[in-house]
Amino acid sequence: MEELSLNTVTVRDRWTLAQCIEGCARHGIPGISPWRDKLAEMGVAAAARRIREAGLVVSGLCRGGMFPAADAAGRRAAIEDNLRAIEEAAAIGARCLVVLGGGLPPGSKDLPGARAMFRDGLAEVLPAARAAGVTIALEPLHPMTCADRSVLSTLGQALDLAEEFGEGVGIALDVYHVWWDPELERQVARARGRIAAFHVCDWLVPTQDLVFDRGMMGEGVIDIPRIRALAEAAGYDGPSEVEILSRRWWAEEPDRVLERIVAWGQGA
Amino acid sequence: MEELSLNTVTVRDRWTLAQCIEGCARHGIPGISPWRDKLAEMGVAAAARRIREAGLVVSGLCRGGMFPAADAAGRRAAIEDNLRAIEEAAAIGARCLVVLGGGLPPGSKDLPGARAMFRDGLAEVLPAARAAGVTIALEPLHPMTCADRSVLSTLGQALDLAEEFGEGVGIALDVYHVWWDPELERQVARARGRIAAFHVCDWLVPTQDLVFDRGMMGEGVIDIPRIRALAEAAGYDGPSEVEILSRRWWAEEPDRVLERIVAWGQGA
Repeated sequence: MEELSLNTVTVRDRWTLAQCIEGCARHGIPGISPWRDKLAEMGVAAAARRIREAGLVVSGLCRGGMFPAADAAGRRAAIEDNLRAIEEAAAIGARCLVVLGGGLPPGSKDLPGARAMFRDGLAEVLPAARAAGVTIALEPLHPMTCADRSVLSTLGQALDLAEEFGEGVGIALDVYHVWWDPELERQVARARGRIAAFHVCDWLVPTQDLVFDRGMMGEGVIDIPRIRALAEAAGYDGPSEVEILSRRWWAEEPDRVLERIVAWGQGA
Repeated sequence: MEELSLNTVTVRDRWTLAQCIEGCARHGIPGISPWRDKLAEMGVAAAARRIREAGLVVSGLCRGGMFPAADAAGRRAAIEDNLRAIEEAAAIGARCLVVLGGGLPPGSKDLPGARAMFRDGLAEVLPAARAAGVTIALEPLHPMTCADRSVLSTLGQALDLAEEFGEGVGIALDVYHVWWDPELERQVARARGRIAAFHVCDWLVPTQDLVFDRGMMGEGVIDIPRIRALAEAAGYDGPSEVEILSRRWWAEEPDRVLERIVAWGQGA
């Protein structure tokens, strides 16, 4: 069985980053992937030290990107925020900085324009990422998030960018966002050497909310082992990072959530 | 401005098919596209006569397809239901029978298997459609419906099938389902000669429900004129069929809904 990593958003409502680090140690989860708000609460230097002391692999830092904005000042602010995120990723030894598309600027219907803004923003921060040794992991999000969260919608689109920019740009493959894609098999094979992260959760039937109703692995309809096998066939051997945005799971006691995760990791 | 057509689901909660036919005449909407439940209520022969007398173009019949099923009996039942739908489409002179993918069979995680069932079902009913002169319009639905409504997820996938089967198989292009697709421009161009229907509504921000929260044209973020222009550049010159599944719009008085549709069609 592959190694696990805990994305801190999975228990975001009840645990601080310090508690997540302790929780991973207590439950035998060898990896962690913090969100930046949790990191800021704890302080980057303190977090880096505690994660190192706990011996945890940092499978990623969530999240940078979100470059589209209504005006030049907004686009500049996004770029500066990404430069800070790159520093933070380097400080905690993250295997990648997960980079999201961002949505359409408010009032805009210009999707090709927003995608061009994303590309331009990426081009602007990439030299800093390369200099810091931080891999940029482009994460396409489910097309249902296109308007307000991610104009980066498919693996094919992310790989077009990764191939264009080359060194230092990979992808984050999240089963929730890509499981439906008729191109899945072909695009994952194409991603060889570029898969920087592998995220898991599940698609519930019915899904009640476009953002906060993901399932625990096994609760839904995604054939996760098949997608993991495709990723491994394309050379990925890193952790399966558990990232569950769910009002239901956020209400659970975090130790119970981690028990479920560990049981899944053991093939239960 | 292009011609309009009213998909009856847009006012499904308050109007019968007879009322829809009268409403189209009253509001100067020259086309209609019934759902089969409305058609059954009125009776196919009576509906065909009334639509003809009203001089309406029938831009489509909704809906066939949905071939994946848990067992052979379920797959057989879907095929037989499609054969009836083909007869109905011929009887009312519909320009196409809109064909949907259907979801995963209950309990299944085998998406490639469900897609193979869809293809097999299509192959089985196609001779009857050709014999009846009914064009099959494969309609890819938004990937958020993949689990429970449509394993047919993208234009590219639908066009692969249309090209494989050839004669009698086209696509239905619904802006709601495809607006996010990074391949949109390329795939619509590829669809030349195969666009059998063009559906409009809008994507709301935020979207509150995965099925029943579509917007009236202009309320959301879809650049509908751009997509219409792509379709016209690919040779499509038929109606823009208005199909709005929305609990909010279903609560409105249907004459007000049709007024809004007509105003949009006039470029308001």
